[in-house]
Amino acid sequence: MRCFHFCKLPGRVMGIRLLRFTSVVIIVLLLVAGALTALLPTIKDDKLPNSRREPKIQSQSALDSFTLIMQTYNRTDLLLKLLNHYQAIPHLHKVIVVWNNIGEKTPEEMWNSLGPHPVPVVFKVQTVNRMRNRLQNFPDLETKAVLMMDDDTLVSAHDLAFAFSVWQQFPEHIVGFVPRKHISTPSGVYSYGSFELQNPGLGNGDQYSMVLIGAAFFHSGYLEDFQHQPEAVYALIDETQNCDDIAMNFLVAKHTGKPSGVFVKPVDIRNLEKDTNSGYSGMWHRAEHLLQRSYCVNKLVNIYDGMPLKYSNIMISQFGFPNYANHKNKM
Amino acid sequence: MRCFHFCKLPGRVMGIRLLRFTSVVIIVLLLVAGALTALLPTIKDDKLPNSRREPKIQSQSALDSFTLIMQTYNRTDLLLKLLNHYQAIPHLHKVIVVWNNIGEKTPEEMWNSLGPHPVPVVFKVQTVNRMRNRLQNFPDLETKAVLMMDDDTLVSAHDLAFAFSVWQQFPEHIVGFVPRKHISTPSGVYSYGSFELQNPGLGNGDQYSMVLIGAAFFHSGYLEDFQHQPEAVYALIDETQNCDDIAMNFLVAKHTGKPSGVFVKPVDIRNLEKDTNSGYSGMWHRAEHLLQRSYCVNKLVNIYDGMPLKYSNIMISQFGFPNYANHKNKM
Repeated sequence: MRCFHFCKLPGRVMGIRLLRFTSVVIIVLLLVAGALTALLPTIKDDKLPNSRREPKIQSQSALDSFTLIMQTYNRTDLLLKLLNHYQAIPHLHKVIVVWNNIGEKTPEEMWNSLGPHPVPVVFKVQTVNRMRNRLQNFPDLETKAVLMMDDDTLVSAHDLAFAFSVWQQFPEHIVGFVPRKHISTPSGVYSYGSFELQNPGLGNGDQYSMVLIGAAFFHSGYLEDFQHQPEAVYALIDETQNCDDIAMNFLVAKHTGKPSGVFVKPVDIRNLEKDTNSGYSGMWHRAEHLLQRSYCVNKLVNIYDGMPLKYSNIMISQFGFPNYANHKNKM
Repeated sequence: MRCFHFCKLPGRVMGIRLLRFTSVVIIVLLLVAGALTALLPTIKDDKLPNSRREPKIQSQSALDSFTLIMQTYNRTDLLLKLLNHYQAIPHLHKVIVVWNNIGEKTPEEMWNSLGPHPVPVVFKVQTVNRMRNRLQNFPDLETKAVLMMDDDTLVSAHDLAFAFSVWQQFPEHIVGFVPRKHISTPSGVYSYGSFELQNPGLGNGDQYSMVLIGAAFFHSGYLEDFQHQPEAVYALIDETQNCDDIAMNFLVAKHTGKPSGVFVKPVDIRNLEKDTNSGYSGMWHRAEHLLQRSYCVNKLVNIYDGMPLKYSNIMISQFGFPNYANHKNKM
């Protein structure tokens, strides 16, 4: 056999020995590498230590689409009706259903049997029926934007497409369809409400200081942030089975130093509560619901040692929709 | 006379000499300082080389108030009616009237005789009747914000107060009450118009790409920037006696890379044209007015080597005003 450099060494014997030696070394290295690979820990879907998760999807999609998170309890008929509507919303990436019907099977089988579907829908089975289950930092979340909807709320695709485009211009805010406010009183005690409460006295018209997350877009990073709030916040939400949305507004307002929400006036938003066969009506029908929310505002002010909520009177609508001349004036 | 440390030196004679010497030095220094002060150049009101002028008013006021710039030609009766209204708008710092009535006396005497007035009003006498006279970087301007109004346009104080608060949240945009758009055609030629033109085809509803400066707030820095545009821009505006507002929108869009304007839907805006005794009706009644504006759009695209205008469909209204429940929905 031909040799080159090595064979100039004294004798072929040296060449063959070297060749054997080299081959043995290579084989040993491969075995070691193989062993090491087998010993590597499997990559789990652990939460990254900071709020910026590495998106598995193209980063363009991560910005241009959103994930719908819908928590459901005792209204599966409404859930399925709404899923049929929401699964086809433009720019929707995925649906996460937070299944609060403890011990009950999800409709996943039925869902799959009625496929194919425009987007993936994942059912997250919960172990305890908690209001704040929907505020987990779900590993399934791949987009920067979350659309959170109550399981009895129907918002038109036009409204959602527009509100999503508004969120893209105000990504640090909760951009949604339901504005609320707090007012302070001479005693220093806060009260929670809506248009029926007095205006905060900042000039003409009304103000809002919260946008409810039951029909809103917000940055998925806030779900991560929510995992790092004082224990007392979780205790409050669990105690009342309420106020998770107020807590989120406190969180966002503290984070930005600005009004937490941007209100987009919906053209077509409906509550389908009365349409359910379950006979179950939402939590907000409880007699103490609003009083609880005022209670929560005051408790959160204690927990956060101050009132971070800020007022806004900006109301955003879509130019020229639905009426091409909805901006005409008498000029 | 008593001495202390110095008098411990040999003899009082030394102390007195030192005292005299010190006094002489002090006096000489004072004389030199006085001479230098006298020789300092007087501080003229020259434009600073960059667009950030040193405000003479408290910097808080500079941000919290605005200057009204109103150009006027052949409608002094309307001007005075509008001045009575606008002089009392909240947060107004000063009024600058751009007097395009060449050779005619301003109503300054009459104005002063009917004082006192809430804010100073300065009449800037022009030498040539030019549309772009109002776009000078007036030394009288002390605020960051400019409110520019046509001399036949009446906007309610509520609208102005709200729009000013919106401008403070969007200071790099033209925040105003009159949206317009351009559309492109397959031939590449642009056309200018309003709701009557086809939508730009970016989803539902309409879009706007300009907010006219005849009823709008914008940053005073843009007046400085306007002084540094290509000569062809001035030539175009002078040739048409039109399109200064389109040029400003091009300037702002180029500067920000975003839509130039933010449209605030006015509750009460009126054109007082028909109320004038002068019989003079505005330039926009000329047969060629709109065609000129399409012409200007295309010329400006040539001058700026591209189309910088961007579309927006954000329409802003004031929450809860005038109707406390203008945001109620059928939920």
